[in-house]
Amino acid sequence: MVLDGHWTAKSRQWVKIYHKTPFSYKMKAVRAYFDNAATTKVAPEVLEAMITFMKDDYGNPGSMHWMGDSAAKAVRSARAAAAKALNCLPSEVFFTSGGTESDNIAIIGSAKKKRIVTSAVEHSAVLETCEHMRSRGYGVTVLGVDGGGLVDPDDLRKAMDNDVSVVSVMTANNVIGTIQRIRELADIAHEFGALFHTDAVQAFTKTDTDVKRLGADMMSVSGHKIHGPKGIGALFVGSGAGIEPIMFGGGQERGLRPSTENVPGIVGLGKACEIAMRTMSADVKRMEKIRNRIIDGVLGIEGSALNGSLERRLCSNAHFRFGGIRGSDLVLRLSKEGIAASTASACSAGSTDPSHVMTAIGLSPAEALSSLRISLSRYTTDEEAGYLLDVLPKVVADMRGGKK
Amino acid sequence: MVLDGHWTAKSRQWVKIYHKTPFSYKMKAVRAYFDNAATTKVAPEVLEAMITFMKDDYGNPGSMHWMGDSAAKAVRSARAAAAKALNCLPSEVFFTSGGTESDNIAIIGSAKKKRIVTSAVEHSAVLETCEHMRSRGYGVTVLGVDGGGLVDPDDLRKAMDNDVSVVSVMTANNVIGTIQRIRELADIAHEFGALFHTDAVQAFTKTDTDVKRLGADMMSVSGHKIHGPKGIGALFVGSGAGIEPIMFGGGQERGLRPSTENVPGIVGLGKACEIAMRTMSADVKRMEKIRNRIIDGVLGIEGSALNGSLERRLCSNAHFRFGGIRGSDLVLRLSKEGIAASTASACSAGSTDPSHVMTAIGLSPAEALSSLRISLSRYTTDEEAGYLLDVLPKVVADMRGGKK
Repeated sequence: MVLDGHWTAKSRQWVKIYHKTPFSYKMKAVRAYFDNAATTKVAPEVLEAMITFMKDDYGNPGSMHWMGDSAAKAVRSARAAAAKALNCLPSEVFFTSGGTESDNIAIIGSAKKKRIVTSAVEHSAVLETCEHMRSRGYGVTVLGVDGGGLVDPDDLRKAMDNDVSVVSVMTANNVIGTIQRIRELADIAHEFGALFHTDAVQAFTKTDTDVKRLGADMMSVSGHKIHGPKGIGALFVGSGAGIEPIMFGGGQERGLRPSTENVPGIVGLGKACEIAMRTMSADVKRMEKIRNRIIDGVLGIEGSALNGSLERRLCSNAHFRFGGIRGSDLVLRLSKEGIAASTASACSAGSTDPSHVMTAIGLSPAEALSSLRISLSRYTTDEEAGYLLDVLPKVVADMRGGKK
Repeated sequence: MVLDGHWTAKSRQWVKIYHKTPFSYKMKAVRAYFDNAATTKVAPEVLEAMITFMKDDYGNPGSMHWMGDSAAKAVRSARAAAAKALNCLPSEVFFTSGGTESDNIAIIGSAKKKRIVTSAVEHSAVLETCEHMRSRGYGVTVLGVDGGGLVDPDDLRKAMDNDVSVVSVMTANNVIGTIQRIRELADIAHEFGALFHTDAVQAFTKTDTDVKRLGADMMSVSGHKIHGPKGIGALFVGSGAGIEPIMFGGGQERGLRPSTENVPGIVGLGKACEIAMRTMSADVKRMEKIRNRIIDGVLGIEGSALNGSLERRLCSNAHFRFGGIRGSDLVLRLSKEGIAASTASACSAGSTDPSHVMTAIGLSPAEALSSLRISLSRYTTDEEAGYLLDVLPKVVADMRGGKK
């Protein structure tokens, strides 16, 4: 990542620029990827592991011959790696097609009693699933959050009774990065005999997601947010939870998630878990340092503010608002400069409505729509941060000055 | 694929063998993959196309920056390729995680009236989903088949009334390869105002699956059966069908199948469709020729018989039974010789019950359990067929003679 150059979005090439003297120009590609909460680069080791199971060992784990054995063995190893990362038994890990499916299975599959309790800042995979359950006659209670995006455990306690099947509160928010007090919330759910589910899609590998320490009965994780592949995720289901499938077929994943196992995807997710467990502690420190540098720098821009909590914040998240600026315009302008960022979440990028997370923390629609999300990964460099801090103030000033 | 050598399953290596004279040995790897109905090798061009979207263009199609644009464009191209292969509009193609999910969406998502009609030889993804619907109060009628595995259109007519939401009959069977009279069945379903769904997972790229010619309202296809990746499939839904999602979330796939798009998987499926459309006609002829050679050869073994219909049979399928032989033992013995085959389907390989397809065509449990499925792909060679025809009679004779 280098700091000179001019990206032209149209040609997707870098224009040669003259640097210092007219004859010593440098042609350099400046790209800074700050949309890791939307999706991450597949780690080279992950890709390599996956290729083997597409090119050579392409068998179906259900087959009885050596090709099937080899695929089944790879799935077993990946399940063990995921279990180690979550601190659970391999038999408690169920591979799914991603975070959305994990959330759907957790909520629909556990709805044995009449009520579901969730929070106002959940991912749409949780909120929309709860709305679907409401249309099927279930009672759904949506807990509000404070200005930092935190659910108050007392609010949960007030909402609970013995009719609640499941409480679903995310470990860390996808938009503003707020880390919830999961252990406290899980304990309250258990007092009332409810299961506790947490969507840890953003939190996994970036903060504590040990299912035992958090006290979760179910946890959703996704491959493509942790440098694994898209199209694969997992749901941890504690041995006693006893939930029902939402799809039916050949009995794979012990009947909870039938379909021919996505072997390369599973292998990729396993490898991503394995790498993350090795590097997490150093990665988190490095991300936090770069993230803090970005927050300090951006808050120097006039009329800017940080959304969410600073204390209970994911190492990879910085979320701002800029008075008088449309966040979506800002994202497009940054894209032209080779900086990939977002307003709220990629899952709602097509929408012109303010993010439900922004309104839940008490921002006005205008404030909500002036947002910029900067999300980091373990591959984020100081150079990228420097480039962002160089470009962003200029772009904001240009936009306020009415420059195109 | 070469005909000399001795595979040791344990070491997964080929033992040197002396050939003709003691000093001119050849060490050759003999492997013949005849389990293409379980899963296929990913085509090299497919793998190459996928790698780009994991390594470099790893963006989320929902993102507003150039990485998102690039991913969204790739998804659009793949959708167009799949639509071309199915002969439908791109807006009628919905990407899913595979055949099982496509079948589930088609059946659960279309259940607006009281009844569902299906056949006794469907894949478990259809039959188990219908059983789930029965447990939810729907009426399910399961049509029997004749000795060749064919549904009689008259039987369907007798089963129909105006309370049927959907008729689901597979295009071609996964165990015995029987190709149903889809057009006739679809026309009858439509007479009674029902939707017609067909699981074309095995048929796609191997026989006619033009949705217009077949008259289908919904069709399930899968990537990994057509040299595409595992973990991706598609559901064709005709514009008027108006079905409901079974998962809820961020609104991707126009709300029918939310979740971050599996871009590499989608790209791989699109590329697999594109290649297949170019080569299908020659591939089918070649597979048919090799398949017929295998059928002729195997029927020369005493006490062998072909299961299913010879006339209405998928080019890639040969399914036999052998008096006095356990199919599962035969598969294990063949595996030791480097031949990958199966008994019925990989999705039920763990089961010791006779396949429901075998009993539906009138075989006794003993006959059903003496089965061997040989399934071809466009990569199947004459050499592989020759090796199979060389080894199989010896293995069957050994087994009958009680040799281990």
